[in-house]
Amino acid sequence: MPLPKLEVCISPALFHLFDPTGKTVVIIDILRATSTICTAFSHGIEKVIAVETLEECSAYEQPGYILAAERGGQKPKGFDFGNSPFDYMNESVSGKTLVLTTTNGTRALVAAKAAKKTLIGSFLNLSTLSSFLQENCSDLILFCAGWRNHFSYEDTMFAGALAEQLSESHIIGDDAVLAALKIYRQSKDNLFEALKSSSHFQRLSKMGIEKDLRYCTRIDECQVLPVAFEDGIINTI
Amino acid sequence: MPLPKLEVCISPALFHLFDPTGKTVVIIDILRATSTICTAFSHGIEKVIAVETLEECSAYEQPGYILAAERGGQKPKGFDFGNSPFDYMNESVSGKTLVLTTTNGTRALVAAKAAKKTLIGSFLNLSTLSSFLQENCSDLILFCAGWRNHFSYEDTMFAGALAEQLSESHIIGDDAVLAALKIYRQSKDNLFEALKSSSHFQRLSKMGIEKDLRYCTRIDECQVLPVAFEDGIINTI
Repeated sequence: MPLPKLEVCISPALFHLFDPTGKTVVIIDILRATSTICTAFSHGIEKVIAVETLEECSAYEQPGYILAAERGGQKPKGFDFGNSPFDYMNESVSGKTLVLTTTNGTRALVAAKAAKKTLIGSFLNLSTLSSFLQENCSDLILFCAGWRNHFSYEDTMFAGALAEQLSESHIIGDDAVLAALKIYRQSKDNLFEALKSSSHFQRLSKMGIEKDLRYCTRIDECQVLPVAFEDGIINTI
Repeated sequence: MPLPKLEVCISPALFHLFDPTGKTVVIIDILRATSTICTAFSHGIEKVIAVETLEECSAYEQPGYILAAERGGQKPKGFDFGNSPFDYMNESVSGKTLVLTTTNGTRALVAAKAAKKTLIGSFLNLSTLSSFLQENCSDLILFCAGWRNHFSYEDTMFAGALAEQLSESHIIGDDAVLAALKIYRQSKDNLFEALKSSSHFQRLSKMGIEKDLRYCTRIDECQVLPVAFEDGIINTI
């Protein structure tokens, strides 16, 4: 049997060029939606519901739900939780449902609905995710959430890290995989240093969240495998 | 005065995210439209007119005009010239007007019409082009023509080569510049070898034009500076 194919979509604005039907999709939004989702699950969050608007998010207000929002890198008024992984590093979140709306990550999750299976990827769960994908013999699209549809350095760098792990289980399906691999290989000795020159880093570091950015390049911090289902994202291990 | 800004657009489908008004745009379609245009000028072509359809191209039939077309990497029936640089390496083309329609390159030229100045870039005219851009203090978008709106390895690799030349005259304007630089730096010791793994190479090499592909990675073969004006492209040196 031929090996399954690996493709990389480097912007949500190019996702229409791909056919996700019957394929597995990994959503990547390193700064910070998918890093935050992995962190929340590793601290006991039961479920994550990703919504597009602040209004949809607020509509979930009830006991057992944490409402979290991010717009332009910051937490809007009226929300206690934002898009920082550090917001979820405490026991009070355990067993709760997180309703999250973010600038780029949520939109990618919505766009990927036609896929057979949609997973959440970040450096924090790299090995857990790649082990699963190596076993799960399926064509695969790594979907970089980007920043306002622009190419994003850190998301593509992670796509390259994952592609490297899958080099024996999958064949390279497009030029974006090659590019992601080159970018990762030029950056892997110090992911945080590589990230420092990215535009997203520069936008976010002005907001004083360098601690978040450093954390988001840590590998295998969270042994989680979040999968998106119709009614929300669940950690399946 | 601050240095002008350099951005890279990695697909025509993302060009709407950029504002070319008042900026210089470099069109890049290494395999093979912009390489062919540079070659044609270096062999004495007077003007290049880029059109979208085969019909528009045929309408120019008259003495002094060469009609050239490419669809899916090949020359359609009824056209004597195609998109191979080798078609233009003879004295018979000198002084003529080349009317060219290609899959990806022409579309990029049309999309960039709002720019202050639009130039044609390829490895063949790298130094001539970069010397001009270093002197011409203007915000700059490197526009990769790609392949059917997909990310293209060789176009981005060239954008990286040009960005490296402009590292002292321009500031990095987006993450795609960083990515292009990393890709180029991982490939520059042997551009042709790097190109070999690209999907476009694999498509075209099946058509037996490996000679073209090798030629298109040669640096500074053509001392030309093609600029697109309202009524066609002219070599301005």
